[in-house]
Amino acid sequence: MSSSAPLTRDDFVRLDNEDGMGQFRARFDLPPNEIYLDGNSLGAMPAHVPARIDTVMRKEWAHGLIRSWNDADWYPAPQRTGGKIARLIGAQAHEVIVADSTSINLFKVLVAATRMQPSRKVILAERGNFPTDVYIADGVAELTGCELRCVEPDAVLDALDESVSILSLTHVNFKSGRRYDMAAITARAHEVGALVVWDLCHSAGAMPIELNGANADFAVGCGYKYLNGGPGAPAFVFVAERHIAQVRQPLTGWHGHAKPFDFSHDYAPHATIDRMLVGTAPQLGVLALEAALEVFEDVDMQALRTKSVALCDLFIQLCDQELQGLGIELRTPRDAEQRGSQVSLAHADAYPVMQALIARGIVGDFRAPDILRFGFTPLYTRYQDVWECVAALREILERKEWDRPEFLARKSVT
Amino acid sequence: MSSSAPLTRDDFVRLDNEDGMGQFRARFDLPPNEIYLDGNSLGAMPAHVPARIDTVMRKEWAHGLIRSWNDADWYPAPQRTGGKIARLIGAQAHEVIVADSTSINLFKVLVAATRMQPSRKVILAERGNFPTDVYIADGVAELTGCELRCVEPDAVLDALDESVSILSLTHVNFKSGRRYDMAAITARAHEVGALVVWDLCHSAGAMPIELNGANADFAVGCGYKYLNGGPGAPAFVFVAERHIAQVRQPLTGWHGHAKPFDFSHDYAPHATIDRMLVGTAPQLGVLALEAALEVFEDVDMQALRTKSVALCDLFIQLCDQELQGLGIELRTPRDAEQRGSQVSLAHADAYPVMQALIARGIVGDFRAPDILRFGFTPLYTRYQDVWECVAALREILERKEWDRPEFLARKSVT
Repeated sequence: MSSSAPLTRDDFVRLDNEDGMGQFRARFDLPPNEIYLDGNSLGAMPAHVPARIDTVMRKEWAHGLIRSWNDADWYPAPQRTGGKIARLIGAQAHEVIVADSTSINLFKVLVAATRMQPSRKVILAERGNFPTDVYIADGVAELTGCELRCVEPDAVLDALDESVSILSLTHVNFKSGRRYDMAAITARAHEVGALVVWDLCHSAGAMPIELNGANADFAVGCGYKYLNGGPGAPAFVFVAERHIAQVRQPLTGWHGHAKPFDFSHDYAPHATIDRMLVGTAPQLGVLALEAALEVFEDVDMQALRTKSVALCDLFIQLCDQELQGLGIELRTPRDAEQRGSQVSLAHADAYPVMQALIARGIVGDFRAPDILRFGFTPLYTRYQDVWECVAALREILERKEWDRPEFLARKSVT
Repeated sequence: MSSSAPLTRDDFVRLDNEDGMGQFRARFDLPPNEIYLDGNSLGAMPAHVPARIDTVMRKEWAHGLIRSWNDADWYPAPQRTGGKIARLIGAQAHEVIVADSTSINLFKVLVAATRMQPSRKVILAERGNFPTDVYIADGVAELTGCELRCVEPDAVLDALDESVSILSLTHVNFKSGRRYDMAAITARAHEVGALVVWDLCHSAGAMPIELNGANADFAVGCGYKYLNGGPGAPAFVFVAERHIAQVRQPLTGWHGHAKPFDFSHDYAPHATIDRMLVGTAPQLGVLALEAALEVFEDVDMQALRTKSVALCDLFIQLCDQELQGLGIELRTPRDAEQRGSQVSLAHADAYPVMQALIARGIVGDFRAPDILRFGFTPLYTRYQDVWECVAALREILERKEWDRPEFLARKSVT
């Protein structure tokens, strides 16, 4: 495609016809006649998941009952599912386990890290990170007598010093889509003796990640975005092999015990990544996530990233071409190396604009106060979706189609 | 039924024929030709739950996608489901919410309670409580600089003094089935200025509970035992209305924030019970639990308790009659007022005995080191099940049917 000639719909049709990743879309049950660009908020449903969960319920739960913890292999499901995620994030299978929510896993890791570095009293975090990360770090600081220090993204490297116990960052920012250089920041943190936890909510499943390649210490992440595990799917936690034996996380529930079914009075953490478990695993959620991960089994993550970059590049190029003078401002880096798999646009009336877009069957999301956020999930987003989205945005903005009471009224969750 | 004449199978058949609660069994999908006496470990499946979850997946998730948080009312599901549990435990709807696991909810409550009583430094708990309760309390003590003091069940009242911040007890003991007098103990704790958290894992859904009648402070409990929410169903937490505004729980995730979707930098807890939330609710689990609770909607909890007492009384009476000299010892109080809805028997070879019983299609469970545990779930247990269980136990013990390699070999979870 020439960079001088304007892009046309035909260009996008041709790209879909030539797309080696196009086959994967058929693995998902998607709403007919809609374009879904919010898989970074809730991933689409892999079509085979309901049948699996139906079997879990009607056969394993209803008729296997308590025996299914052994006979249907429910018991090792958090480890097994963690192992499947490990492949996507550059970890070893025994370094990842599925448990609880991202917030709770972050709490475990932050407290554990402060215990590993008792002489250091600073938790360093990014201002503008996803709020739960900051809230949880604030809660940990209060409990552990540490100080939470939040700095602007560009100031993170300079703020690293010998006082820092742990640096808590999100790999790809939820709002801007900006991506940190994991290897460089981790290396710099290690130089001053700090540990690092990476929140992978907006990158796991969207691109290849190399946790061990970056010598990462800890990571947490979400099961319901690019991993397509379903609403509120359980989260995962990674602990580098070299740290597992030292990690003392504070939520000392029975499933993290060395021998849970001995029912002994004293807590003794399991020798493995199992020590990150707390209570009984939420099996419907874990097994849905495990089934959902099957769609990745034969996916080349480098090819997935190549398509993700192409989708985002084309979207930005098309915005430049079609939306000039319509009050739109790009908020995501143009350089793909500094980006995840989403593009964010600012607009003064972002909320009603997004509602008008959704009314046309193109689903992105709004993030306060002024962000239109579009997630490009390479497994099921088509190149034509990019064209249709920008074409619709142009019409909505040119015609002020967003200026209607039904679009202006706020819903509780957006 | 005369107390002098020996009980016969016909007595139990007649009781089933006359049982006003017998109709509720048809609401469950139970394995054919089996007797399930382990609903206190994993509740049976209400037959309508799979259809509900299939709709959640194929319609709400797959086609509603992100909009279902609003349009399918996913967002208020934890509150709505908490409200349904509230009726069963003598609470107001706005005092109960569904979230996370029992262990994690206990952690929240214990830390919050120690913060409400900063001058008090003792967490008082029962030795022999379910291990996770003790482990979690131990973890809280370490984090908050408190002391965990564990005493024998009979010593709890005497151990209450002005140093106690919070008393953490399980209403019905998981192993012995012994039940505390919630009102009397709560009143005594309040006399010395201590708060009380009741773990209702082994009583919620098995009997009427009057949290507000007992002036309880906090409670936690499990969704997957007598509430039949499915394997690893989310748990619930109760905070008395008078405490909600003071509660500062440490897992400060975004769903507990006053305005989660404002994405503000600083944490401010929600004004309501919502402050007990942490991350995104595990919707498959929450919605399965909500659906499961429908089986209770027209159940008279007093009638349910009456049947529960009858089942347990008859089981004990039949054990006395049939199992003399066979090495069985009753470990549950004979007085129904001191009991939950389970009966525990000790036997030196309890593990293989239970395996032999399961091989005959009668499912109870084993608890280390020597307990045969039988849960009597009044919604789906028949009087005849009691007869069949004791008759089978007698044959297994008389014939030493348990003394086989396949019964002696331990499985990972039992």
